[in-house]
Amino acid sequence: MAVLAKLGLFADIQGFSNIAERTFLQDSLNDFMGLNKDIWKAVREKIIDFLTNEENAVRAAVNYKHSIVTADQKDCTMYIPAKIGDYTDFYASENHAANVGTMFRGKDNALMPNYHHLPVGYHGRASSVVVSGTDLKRPRGQIPSPDGPRFGPSMKLDFELEVAVFIGTGNDLGTNIPIETAEDYIFGFVLMNDWSARDIQAWEYVPLGPFLGKNFGTTISPWVVTTFAMAPFKTALPDPKAARLDYLKDDPNSGYDCDLFVSFKPKDSDDYKVISHSNLKYLSWSFKQQLAHHTIGGCNLRPGDLLGSGTISGTTQDSLGSMLEMSWNGKNTISVSESGETRTFINDGDTVKLSGYCQGDGYRVGFGNCVGMILP
Amino acid sequence: MAVLAKLGLFADIQGFSNIAERTFLQDSLNDFMGLNKDIWKAVREKIIDFLTNEENAVRAAVNYKHSIVTADQKDCTMYIPAKIGDYTDFYASENHAANVGTMFRGKDNALMPNYHHLPVGYHGRASSVVVSGTDLKRPRGQIPSPDGPRFGPSMKLDFELEVAVFIGTGNDLGTNIPIETAEDYIFGFVLMNDWSARDIQAWEYVPLGPFLGKNFGTTISPWVVTTFAMAPFKTALPDPKAARLDYLKDDPNSGYDCDLFVSFKPKDSDDYKVISHSNLKYLSWSFKQQLAHHTIGGCNLRPGDLLGSGTISGTTQDSLGSMLEMSWNGKNTISVSESGETRTFINDGDTVKLSGYCQGDGYRVGFGNCVGMILP
Repeated sequence: MAVLAKLGLFADIQGFSNIAERTFLQDSLNDFMGLNKDIWKAVREKIIDFLTNEENAVRAAVNYKHSIVTADQKDCTMYIPAKIGDYTDFYASENHAANVGTMFRGKDNALMPNYHHLPVGYHGRASSVVVSGTDLKRPRGQIPSPDGPRFGPSMKLDFELEVAVFIGTGNDLGTNIPIETAEDYIFGFVLMNDWSARDIQAWEYVPLGPFLGKNFGTTISPWVVTTFAMAPFKTALPDPKAARLDYLKDDPNSGYDCDLFVSFKPKDSDDYKVISHSNLKYLSWSFKQQLAHHTIGGCNLRPGDLLGSGTISGTTQDSLGSMLEMSWNGKNTISVSESGETRTFINDGDTVKLSGYCQGDGYRVGFGNCVGMILP
Repeated sequence: MAVLAKLGLFADIQGFSNIAERTFLQDSLNDFMGLNKDIWKAVREKIIDFLTNEENAVRAAVNYKHSIVTADQKDCTMYIPAKIGDYTDFYASENHAANVGTMFRGKDNALMPNYHHLPVGYHGRASSVVVSGTDLKRPRGQIPSPDGPRFGPSMKLDFELEVAVFIGTGNDLGTNIPIETAEDYIFGFVLMNDWSARDIQAWEYVPLGPFLGKNFGTTISPWVVTTFAMAPFKTALPDPKAARLDYLKDDPNSGYDCDLFVSFKPKDSDDYKVISHSNLKYLSWSFKQQLAHHTIGGCNLRPGDLLGSGTISGTTQDSLGSMLEMSWNGKNTISVSESGETRTFINDGDTVKLSGYCQGDGYRVGFGNCVGMILP
């Protein structure tokens, strides 16, 4: 990108051309994310033209197929796209929240009274967000038992199927992002696996929320799908179950129709099996609502901040976003291979892969994989 | 510091002399924090010698009193000492946890079953940690009412008296910091005011913990008191009320005797009144235990990460660390001036100042102030 800038691909983008080269000569996208949607859009259009238009002047000037500006994906090592200042995780899928709430607190207390009034969220750990392909060690910690907590490795290690957005333009402390313009602050979308140790989490989470049950690692896909690329796939949000306060009133067409998959590869197996097929449209709260809520008290978001959706579960057994739900906290087995292997949670050596795409007319917008193996 | 390095003050510190100048030519202490305790200690001793020994060679070489290496504190603008990658807040004062638990959940559910087994903590918001002297706007948000949530400014804005540590040397993802060496990872101590909107917090915090009730701002004092300076003030921790798992077994002498004060200046007043006198020794969990717990599942800490103690409350009415406790959630008034003004929570225009010191024999180790005013 810096070479393309030097060669003048962005020369007619006002307010960017003079900083383009140094913006891309970084080991993260934070500087670029910190600009604004008009510049992101103009840059995207220039790149599309470079990649697809054989008459493109810069393309003509470089030896396109064998130049340092292009490389085969198989030869590339992918890195985390941004330095993440803060990572927030929401809980925006009602199906997931109701399932987990039923298991942890019983059916009568499954959804808390606040659930239909605000997008529940919490602050997660930024330091342990890693890029797809990073293997993670099974966490140890306090495991609840009838005789009190004992120390050991988690016996209920789980994945969570999520989509996350990277914040582009930030806001100052003491200001808020109105829902009407919230989309302008979103740089783009990634897949996210919010690995969770359910036994550690169940013991520790009262009253201040998840901590060690989550902070041993969170995996994201390396390709950021821009908000522009997602735009054609807008769809209706589920009907709200309580009246929204003004700052959360959103265009009903603020969901996204995006197919999401969880694939599982047991230890010593060569093959993945798809064990869940969910969809981004199952979220009860939009990302715009999440941004508007996050900032309504004046909290500042910074370029490169990551906001997770929460686990995305459908209403059917084959569209759940976690093994906690699929196995109903270990009561039922889950088929994880064609040869008959089963699991209730993740074993050492197992690999989990998230994938997803938006299906257009004759094309797909894909996300790239979000993969991780669990080490002993 | 960079000038002192150039002048050779650190010339005989092995492994540091060649990087000293560039380590200090930064707008934060992160690079220095990321070294190790032997270097921090050696640098501290060199600075003490420079400041106190008139024979010090570098001191002789500079015009000490009117050089660019010294300045009157009143002429200085203080900045936040480090770029905070992640901020974690614990809940380590049993008195505080029991008081808040009684108010929010009733006496029978005040302390959760996990409280005596692990130092409860949660991830806070790093972007909104500000340095002393930064005024903060009263947050707006969802305020619970009998008719459901309404939107408005928080009517229960509170401070929290805390002490926080800055992480120095970090640990890699997938490793843990053993309690025996945990102190080596702590760079130093600051005062912290974890401002809290109690009405927003009470409505939002189930089941995933505090979010907007806290993330509108957290204030720290700018001077980092090193672990070496705190060492003479070690004191006994309270007796544990449950057996500790091995990874949390700490030297009983891991508390600190450090007097802490909250002063209040009502709007339009010129004078502060001390409204609380607490002490760091009231913590039930040591900072070493907090580090050991934070990392036991493999979570990585990075230089400049901030770990708050949680609100530090004694057992008496005049040693409580929050107005929530002092006013018992607004039921009683608190005297905040000599002229008879009272509060239940913070009004617009009020200023809160935290201060503290360790009392030595003929000297005090002070912290500098942690001050903030609440704007409408």
